[in-house]
Amino acid sequence: MSEKPLAIGIDFGGTSVKTGVVRGHEIIDQAPPIATQDFDSPGELMQTMIRTVEDLRVRHGSVRAVGIGMPGFVDFEKGVVFGLTNVRGWENVPLREELQAKLGLPVAADNDANCMAYAEWKLGAGKGRRHLVCVALGTGVGGGIIANGQMLRGAKFAAGEIGQSSIDYQGRKGHYGNLGALEDYIGNREIARDAIAAYEAAGITKHIEDCSPAALAEAAKLGDKIALGCWDGIGRMLATAMMNTCWLLNPEAIVIGGGVARAGDLLFTPFREHLLRQLSGPFKDDLAILPAAFGHEAGTVGAAALALDEAGL
Amino acid sequence: MSEKPLAIGIDFGGTSVKTGVVRGHEIIDQAPPIATQDFDSPGELMQTMIRTVEDLRVRHGSVRAVGIGMPGFVDFEKGVVFGLTNVRGWENVPLREELQAKLGLPVAADNDANCMAYAEWKLGAGKGRRHLVCVALGTGVGGGIIANGQMLRGAKFAAGEIGQSSIDYQGRKGHYGNLGALEDYIGNREIARDAIAAYEAAGITKHIEDCSPAALAEAAKLGDKIALGCWDGIGRMLATAMMNTCWLLNPEAIVIGGGVARAGDLLFTPFREHLLRQLSGPFKDDLAILPAAFGHEAGTVGAAALALDEAGL
Repeated sequence: MSEKPLAIGIDFGGTSVKTGVVRGHEIIDQAPPIATQDFDSPGELMQTMIRTVEDLRVRHGSVRAVGIGMPGFVDFEKGVVFGLTNVRGWENVPLREELQAKLGLPVAADNDANCMAYAEWKLGAGKGRRHLVCVALGTGVGGGIIANGQMLRGAKFAAGEIGQSSIDYQGRKGHYGNLGALEDYIGNREIARDAIAAYEAAGITKHIEDCSPAALAEAAKLGDKIALGCWDGIGRMLATAMMNTCWLLNPEAIVIGGGVARAGDLLFTPFREHLLRQLSGPFKDDLAILPAAFGHEAGTVGAAALALDEAGL
Repeated sequence: MSEKPLAIGIDFGGTSVKTGVVRGHEIIDQAPPIATQDFDSPGELMQTMIRTVEDLRVRHGSVRAVGIGMPGFVDFEKGVVFGLTNVRGWENVPLREELQAKLGLPVAADNDANCMAYAEWKLGAGKGRRHLVCVALGTGVGGGIIANGQMLRGAKFAAGEIGQSSIDYQGRKGHYGNLGALEDYIGNREIARDAIAAYEAAGITKHIEDCSPAALAEAAKLGDKIALGCWDGIGRMLATAMMNTCWLLNPEAIVIGGGVARAGDLLFTPFREHLLRQLSGPFKDDLAILPAAFGHEAGTVGAAALALDEAGL
């Protein structure tokens, strides 16, 4: 068999834009990250992205396609960015068209969570599954859905927003007016805030300085009961949202990634228990619950893989 | 164009099995219903179903296929019934194989809510949509999902169970151990029970004899504030579950049917308000919220349409 084709994957984040040369599931070379907020307009940032890609192509002449994962809503068919969550100015930007014209390569642009899901589906923990739900737990909670062996993007390419789905119809009011959004309970910041409240309620102040998920995981590993209680609660709330995706979509597998998932069994054990306890036979028999295979590189690898597949390469 | 082919649709319910001859979206002839609970075994009931179909074929010789909607889990590809919710003995019954052998016609068997959704998608309110969520509100709350222009059945053909999805992670304990299942709030019986509790809490006894959804709709139309409050609550809880399907699937349209939906604007107005208030642009712009086109006949018509499509007729 011939060597797998090279592609460039771009992981466009609210803080930095990371660009890598990808072969299969590996990033074989990387450009220095671009600081997203240094740019006042999409046009300037796009110029810098184009230069960055061209620099990498000098070293890797056989790059065949470019994929980009964007933190917001993208018209996947047209390659137009509707708007980004934390980056101003990106309204109705014909990203794919502009990059294709300048680079002379096929370009694919999709939502970043979809790119992560694509990496897990094509090359990672959910490889080859026909029915798969992927979720990434970080500052935000994002997701991607594969159903009937296809990426499920929906009417306006916005599907997979598991973090905005509700776990409590009378719950906290979220960014979009939605009550009880999962992200408003188990996003990074909310985990820390709720942990601080739990320590305060117990009259314990020693842990309050750092209640990040990483610090909470350390405390729990040392047997801290409040930290353990926090992880049980996180697992329970995540289980409710994922249970809902199971009743709706009946997936074969659930893949969980993102920084919060690095807590490992502290998260997966209560998650699994709360989830399986609330599902009937055809929904839980043979259901695989898997940690993501990719870490921070998921978006880059997934964008590259998507670009090659869309170009038929 | 030639006339549409005839098919027989069977709507297998916990109380009765209804069999009709269908042309397009119309039931042109019907057999007397079979009382489901009169039979001790699947074998005997299947014999009666076969006789019923054969009787109809005497009058309608050009019937080309038979479709059956079952109230439970069906392996759609193999046509095997795993188990039914309210009918004993239907475990691992090779329904399609047996009927095909006896009838000499192509047979399709699917979950009843999927058949209803199929009718709405192919011939009803959601006709021709590529991304559609259908929900039927009755004693149970069932659903069917169309994504990427295909019925979404999932790994074990059990997808679409919107009624089992949770609206409250700390809520009521449901049949499958799931907390906060929508059906446990807005199923027929739960609507009545909660309405009685609301009247009692207000010290009003005149309505307590009949708090069925139909009676509650009558009371609300006369301006009864408690009944109006009940409908707002039902709309709100339904909105949470459907909002979750929107964030996950980004459908073009939502179709709502079943007996409870006959309340019309009493349900649809609060539902629409609570739903749209909790969704962002790409999820709510152009989202169609539609009453089902079919009533009780949805299952029969959908099963017949599905059978013809599956047989390539």
